[in-house]
Amino acid sequence: MPKNKQILLDNRPEGEAKASNFKLVTSETPALKDGEVLVRHHFLSLDPYMRGRMNDAKSYAAPQELGKVMQGGTVGEVVESRHPKFAAGDKVVGMGGWQEYAVVAADQPGALRKVDTTHVPLSHYLGAVGMPGVTAWYGLNKIIEPKAGQTVVVSAASGAVGSALGALAKARGCRAVGIAGGPDKCKYVTADLGFDACIDYKQHADAQSLSRALKEACPQGIDGYFENVGGMVMDAVMLRMNAFGRIALCGMIAGYDGKPIPMAYPQLILTNRLLVQGFIVSEHMDVWPQALQELGTLVGTGKLRPRESVAQGLEAAPEAFLGMLKGRNFGKQLVKLA
Amino acid sequence: MPKNKQILLDNRPEGEAKASNFKLVTSETPALKDGEVLVRHHFLSLDPYMRGRMNDAKSYAAPQELGKVMQGGTVGEVVESRHPKFAAGDKVVGMGGWQEYAVVAADQPGALRKVDTTHVPLSHYLGAVGMPGVTAWYGLNKIIEPKAGQTVVVSAASGAVGSALGALAKARGCRAVGIAGGPDKCKYVTADLGFDACIDYKQHADAQSLSRALKEACPQGIDGYFENVGGMVMDAVMLRMNAFGRIALCGMIAGYDGKPIPMAYPQLILTNRLLVQGFIVSEHMDVWPQALQELGTLVGTGKLRPRESVAQGLEAAPEAFLGMLKGRNFGKQLVKLA
Repeated sequence: MPKNKQILLDNRPEGEAKASNFKLVTSETPALKDGEVLVRHHFLSLDPYMRGRMNDAKSYAAPQELGKVMQGGTVGEVVESRHPKFAAGDKVVGMGGWQEYAVVAADQPGALRKVDTTHVPLSHYLGAVGMPGVTAWYGLNKIIEPKAGQTVVVSAASGAVGSALGALAKARGCRAVGIAGGPDKCKYVTADLGFDACIDYKQHADAQSLSRALKEACPQGIDGYFENVGGMVMDAVMLRMNAFGRIALCGMIAGYDGKPIPMAYPQLILTNRLLVQGFIVSEHMDVWPQALQELGTLVGTGKLRPRESVAQGLEAAPEAFLGMLKGRNFGKQLVKLA
Repeated sequence: MPKNKQILLDNRPEGEAKASNFKLVTSETPALKDGEVLVRHHFLSLDPYMRGRMNDAKSYAAPQELGKVMQGGTVGEVVESRHPKFAAGDKVVGMGGWQEYAVVAADQPGALRKVDTTHVPLSHYLGAVGMPGVTAWYGLNKIIEPKAGQTVVVSAASGAVGSALGALAKARGCRAVGIAGGPDKCKYVTADLGFDACIDYKQHADAQSLSRALKEACPQGIDGYFENVGGMVMDAVMLRMNAFGRIALCGMIAGYDGKPIPMAYPQLILTNRLLVQGFIVSEHMDVWPQALQELGTLVGTGKLRPRESVAQGLEAAPEAFLGMLKGRNFGKQLVKLA
């Protein structure tokens, strides 16, 4: 059996996460038991939610255990199988974690899924046609529920979730407006992803300034908002929400590293009769088949062209992860492992 | 026609509202035209939402116009009618405003409604069996939607909305926990209104302390919250919300007088997958008949025993209103006019 490089959570961050929170080790890969599959990982997914799990705090998921392999989504190829439904060479998506190989008990629900790479590159099953894409799909269709002609805004628009949100909103006849950091990301959001407009939040020192830019980009106001970042960006959008606007709260990356960032204008929820709803896509497995089919079609037909930031080799994972938390990635952050 | 004392909005508050924002005048009551009804007001309702309308700010309702009679709910008796559906002596509820008499174009939808005072005292149509009662009904049934056995918390629990919320929640088999200011109000909330527990927020200096008290009063956590006040009380409740908890946002009286009060922990909406929804009961007229019937039954059968603070005479309205904004009322705040 092959040697397996792994990254463990060594200690919990105090404030900002650091590379020293992680530890690289090499272990033996155990022999397979009946029902198990050995997967060689081609790509590891790095996602903002992982930062929350590094804390030892009550949250929607149990905290990442210390001394254990960091959890995370992976795609790869079956190397060896003692499960009748999987064979060597199968392309699979799973939750293999920050390591080069995983031994998977393939009967566990959701543990391993075969995917077809004819029209969709394998890596996209970690992004547009995977968890981030379904996250966008759920927020748009089950919380925001926009009508054609309405205006939908998404923060972190060039990222894996944001880009899928834009394509889905456009497919429903909405005006899609993105918020992203820097001119390159904004250009990609409008030119390649087909958003109607994109605002560079780095050009704005406060929520009032960003809110003025949103007024120009959203002349009819904002009917739906998909929130990935929180903080000043969320405050600015709330100032432009129309009556009966709906906010899907998916991430608040701005506050992950330190103290919680308050919401400046909660009274707008009242005066504008807003709905604000938090959700976790893994609690809504029933929508995944429909969502993945739609997302696969959007990617297959070129209507959603996801961009990826790919770090090379497992050793690069911690720095790539920390960079993503600061918005240094451009599109879906991956680590190429094979 | 009788002389009519009226209170106008003379100027808008800067920060805290003051008696000098109002002006008392006496006018002639005009002769009735066809379709009009002259109502002598017995009671005027004072409600927190009026404070918001005194500002010249974008809100759900147009601001109160300067130099015009303060708007507000009233109950009274028809003195003279030139409308076929109303006759002298009819008891009616309407939006007559801060004045002793009102000339009402009775054909306007919602302008005037005859009520039966056999089992329900006239004044209660401004409280438990009126707008505040329906407000509680809507928030509980259309937003919180609690199941039997769940825990529902309401702030300003001794007030018109809070007391109705408690009775409705108990009728649905929930644990009802109130938050109120002072031992007298808390005693009334548990002894007279039948709440399972009540917490005196004045005994707590910050959200953490209040949150610890809520943990004791809500051993199973909080599933539904009806928010009337905002600020520190809301922060404390949010710290105790269960996963998938639901918050009906009806009022944020804590922030009406000055700067908006931030929400300290918006990330809890995400981590606990909360739903937070603002609403205005006047936009949901379809539920009023069903709600009023239920509330009338609760009052008629003694299951909801609303308490009233009654100021005497129109001249007393401004001070009574300002006192209510500071929580000096005990139960529904009314002004007796006749």
